[in-house]
Amino acid sequence: MIHILLLLSLFTFTNAAVQDFCVADMKFPESPAGYACKPATVVTVDDFVSTGLRYSGNLSNIIKAAVTPAFAAQLPGVNGLGISIARLDLAPGGVVPMHTHPGGSELLLVTQGFIEAGFISSANTVYVKTLQKGDLMVFPQGLLHFQVNAGGVTAVAFASFSSATPGLQILDFALFANDLPSMLVEATTFLDDATVKKLKAVLGGTG
Amino acid sequence: MIHILLLLSLFTFTNAAVQDFCVADMKFPESPAGYACKPATVVTVDDFVSTGLRYSGNLSNIIKAAVTPAFAAQLPGVNGLGISIARLDLAPGGVVPMHTHPGGSELLLVTQGFIEAGFISSANTVYVKTLQKGDLMVFPQGLLHFQVNAGGVTAVAFASFSSATPGLQILDFALFANDLPSMLVEATTFLDDATVKKLKAVLGGTG
Amino acid sequence: MIHILLLLSLFTFTNAAVQDFCVADMKFPESPAGYACKPATVVTVDDFVSTGLRYSGNLSNIIKAAVTPAFAAQLPGVNGLGISIARLDLAPGGVVPMHTHPGGSELLLVTQGFIEAGFISSANTVYVKTLQKGDLMVFPQGLLHFQVNAGGVTAVAFASFSSATPGLQILDFALFANDLPSMLVEATTFLDDATVKKLKAVLGGTG
Amino acid sequence: MIHILLLLSLFTFTNAAVQDFCVADMKFPESPAGYACKPATVVTVDDFVSTGLRYSGNLSNIIKAAVTPAFAAQLPGVNGLGISIARLDLAPGGVVPMHTHPGGSELLLVTQGFIEAGFISSANTVYVKTLQKGDLMVFPQGLLHFQVNAGGVTAVAFASFSSATPGLQILDFALFANDLPSMLVEATTFLDDATVKKLKAVLGGTG
Amino acid sequence: MIHILLLLSLFTFTNAAVQDFCVADMKFPESPAGYACKPATVVTVDDFVSTGLRYSGNLSNIIKAAVTPAFAAQLPGVNGLGISIARLDLAPGGVVPMHTHPGGSELLLVTQGFIEAGFISSANTVYVKTLQKGDLMVFPQGLLHFQVNAGGVTAVAFASFSSATPGLQILDFALFANDLPSMLVEATTFLDDATVKKLKAVLGGTG
Amino acid sequence: MIHILLLLSLFTFTNAAVQDFCVADMKFPESPAGYACKPATVVTVDDFVSTGLRYSGNLSNIIKAAVTPAFAAQLPGVNGLGISIARLDLAPGGVVPMHTHPGGSELLLVTQGFIEAGFISSANTVYVKTLQKGDLMVFPQGLLHFQVNAGGVTAVAFASFSSATPGLQILDFALFANDLPSMLVEATTFLDDATVKKLKAVLGGTG
Repeated sequence: MIHILLLLSLFTFTNAAVQDFCVADMKFPESPAGYACKPATVVTVDDFVSTGLRYSGNLSNIIKAAVTPAFAAQLPGVNGLGISIARLDLAPGGVVPMHTHPGGSELLLVTQGFIEAGFISSANTVYVKTLQKGDLMVFPQGLLHFQVNAGGVTAVAFASFSSATPGLQILDFALFANDLPSMLVEATTFLDDATVKKLKAVLGGTG
Repeated sequence: MIHILLLLSLFTFTNAAVQDFCVADMKFPESPAGYACKPATVVTVDDFVSTGLRYSGNLSNIIKAAVTPAFAAQLPGVNGLGISIARLDLAPGGVVPMHTHPGGSELLLVTQGFIEAGFISSANTVYVKTLQKGDLMVFPQGLLHFQVNAGGVTAVAFASFSSATPGLQILDFALFANDLPSMLVEATTFLDDATVKKLKAVLGGTG
Repeated sequence: MIHILLLLSLFTFTNAAVQDFCVADMKFPESPAGYACKPATVVTVDDFVSTGLRYSGNLSNIIKAAVTPAFAAQLPGVNGLGISIARLDLAPGGVVPMHTHPGGSELLLVTQGFIEAGFISSANTVYVKTLQKGDLMVFPQGLLHFQVNAGGVTAVAFASFSSATPGLQILDFALFANDLPSMLVEATTFLDDATVKKLKAVLGGTG
Repeated sequence: MIHILLLLSLFTFTNAAVQDFCVADMKFPESPAGYACKPATVVTVDDFVSTGLRYSGNLSNIIKAAVTPAFAAQLPGVNGLGISIARLDLAPGGVVPMHTHPGGSELLLVTQGFIEAGFISSANTVYVKTLQKGDLMVFPQGLLHFQVNAGGVTAVAFASFSSATPGLQILDFALFANDLPSMLVEATTFLDDATVKKLKAVLGGTG
Repeated sequence: MIHILLLLSLFTFTNAAVQDFCVADMKFPESPAGYACKPATVVTVDDFVSTGLRYSGNLSNIIKAAVTPAFAAQLPGVNGLGISIARLDLAPGGVVPMHTHPGGSELLLVTQGFIEAGFISSANTVYVKTLQKGDLMVFPQGLLHFQVNAGGVTAVAFASFSSATPGLQILDFALFANDLPSMLVEATTFLDDATVKKLKAVLGGTG
Repeated sequence: MIHILLLLSLFTFTNAAVQDFCVADMKFPESPAGYACKPATVVTVDDFVSTGLRYSGNLSNIIKAAVTPAFAAQLPGVNGLGISIARLDLAPGGVVPMHTHPGGSELLLVTQGFIEAGFISSANTVYVKTLQKGDLMVFPQGLLHFQVNAGGVTAVAFASFSSATPGLQILDFALFANDLPSMLVEATTFLDDATVKKLKAVLGGTG
């Protein structure tokens, strides 16, 4: 019995020295490396588990698509671990419009239906493929890419990311869903005024 | 027309300056940062796509489990991007034995059936949960963890990793499937000689 | 005299142990961490110096702009050091169209004239400012941004990057200067067919 | 005199811009990159110095071993610097049981006696060597390894780590010194119930 | 209209998941990765812009030089982005004395006049060059380097860094502008007592 | 028996996917991340072991000191692992002159005798301490530091580094043991011509 106690006390320092993980505590300010860490004493298994991706998001929208993220803000256990995931549902005709993830690369896994996916490199080369259940496709960090439903049924996919906070910049939202002056949009995209005004109207942009 | 040419020539430097990705070229030596890069001119979309995870691996084995990886060696497009994935199939009664990934954290997504999964922290705290379809669980880098089928049907899951080469060290293989002298195994695990010898016999170890 | 020799021999090991820098040697394959290193014995000061940004690029083009990079491909001494630079010249009315750098953040320094510059965050917030000589503006990694001449004179600026190979993805080139099928462009950008076809014609795209 | 003042004021900005080090301040929450930083104004040389490894830990325990760490929690000056150290004392017959450091690689230096040390790779290859005073051995991050006294005298060694918080997961403690249900231990290690129960009894485990 | 709302709500999660940038908030403790982040809601374009480098610093000092930094402490938007910049003014005869940046590599751009610049490698090799307007020179991280005015006119340059907090250790200040005992300075630099005492007098050192 | 084979084949993929370590192969060009990797098939335990630090280096030199490194060039197993070590012997009166490690932080462990060690921060603050056997002191990356024998007996210490190739720039060698023109040394250090010429003569410098 005394042996056990000695042995245990011998290594109990490890409790103080541990930084196996850093479960996000959003009550404190972030750092460039991610959210602050919750004290290990109050961490539970539920910090590492998410049930939020069991069901499809609402597909009754203009793009017939839903994206449900499990980034550090939704799944605090991934904070600082360089990984996260999101669920993608695409009704027939659904589209995830052209977008980038400024903070991470993406690995897409199709689990239902058919998806045509593609990305464009800095050299303007296009890489497109139609994927079926079980197929994977990689989208390197920061490059424009898209997914469209390529079958007659709802498609489901899961996108893993090489960051706990990969970010998401949707091209049309960046250009047309804010107050960036139309003149600047036109000058920097070569789109004409009518096109810009029309998309601003659809997406809620001003200026 | 001349405008187009001027404009194109203006930015063609980008072709030379590009390092958006580094598709693995296994004919050259690796570096600490991963495999050498295939020249961009011979890269195709198939370097970024895998169809190898469509089907279950063979489950007719002692652990009723199959792991099919899409690491940089199988999916060269992930090289250098800090992400990879593996498919896990577990027949009823199937087990992925206690193991670690020395090189990355894991994010498990269950796509069929039920899986009881868990990990143990450096502080020897146990985090266990039973997951169903659509559920996620994170296993921080380097910590011992396991998955067992928790239902009467075959379970399927996909494990994403925060590295293109996360590695996999299976505890029983590390201890009993090589020539590590039994005396050293016993001294460093507190297992008795009979147990060590029996498991060496099952797993093909010597010494 | 013998003291000198002893002292020198004492520390000559440092020659073998040195990896202060890794001047790019483009004859060998790249790694995810950058180009291979030229042997230190053949490195000269000119590997660390560039005179290629002394003069403006050609501004007689459709956007009245020229970008002259000193990335690792042009200035081999920056390889592996996490820094590079490019010169930007903008005639009156000149524009650097909407673009991203997938591999690094940018710090713009205006050295002549006036430039209106801006970026859009993942949250679709717009950050725009007109800069004059000596002013700086930061564009975080991977986010869409632009620069336009905001005065009646040619403007000059230097853009530093947090990577030796930051990359450059120009939005219009990515969408309209390759063989990405018009139907996919339209489905993923909400642009109409006429607009897409027109810009493809201007920028040399097909499909 | 005025020259001195001018010169000093010229560069005093450096005081504000300094982040040479980040001495751990454990009163604030950690971040994924380590502990918060103590203000530079209250840092003293003692934050960078440890005298806690002068003497052997208590060897009167079941494994005749003592590990005394100088990680960021004990030596706050290493926080954020990617290095730390621990002292290892091994009485004759002493053993550091099979373990991993999830967060860093180890470089072992023997300073007294003889130690047989080894590690097992992901490919299940065994690397074992008997070391004497002045010898070094490297254990790559996350791999199972061990040390045993290989002589008739007490051995002393110092283990440096490539992290300020390398962590320590001792195999037997992870398996047998907590409430991980015996059934799960048995299913995932192929150990029989008697063995698991016996080791749980010795190491204080339940379930 | 309802379509717009649906579309917007669909992706509004991105606001919570965003960590595009981490504008420095100096009211909270730093972490090893940099300053704490200001909440995105109070960030404005001015956090990303600096007008502080428009004008020369005061050159009426002993070295006829002025360094004006835009590091994270002065330009909070660069925090965490791995980049920063400083303006250097050198009157005729002006000198930036031998120094290092412990935390980053430097890329110098001359924008006016002539500067002779150089660095010394760990192998004690000297790399020196005289630069003119538009020329660049790289100084790898941590190596001793210097800049001197090489013409009859005031020179101006901008030094970019691969870190938001590169630090600056000026050799003469480190040796002679503090209370490091003269005896230690002499023993570790081979300078004689008279030289050390004289420079301590000039630079305000004691001991 | 067939079970064993099935089990083994199940996981043999791990052999291909492994990158647990990257033992330096100096026959191929380096990358910014370190030396190329030797194929795992030819790696042996001796790649991870060094016996080269058993004995003192030659102390019969002007500084009565010897430094024996085990960096990646001498101990190939540390390549890519972010750690290395060097042995330091200091006869009575011995000195390791003022120097920096541009590529890593240092953690000094005294194993015999007494050493007075110190470093100077970017803010020019001095941190000095006299260490005895078993004591530790940290020197943050890139900062000037030194060690002097502080007792009447030969001192021995081991310096661990947070890099496999930390580099070593010795101040006096950088200034006086090469062809850096005396005029430039004088202008950038404020040392007088006689002092510079004298030290150049001692250390073998020219110009």
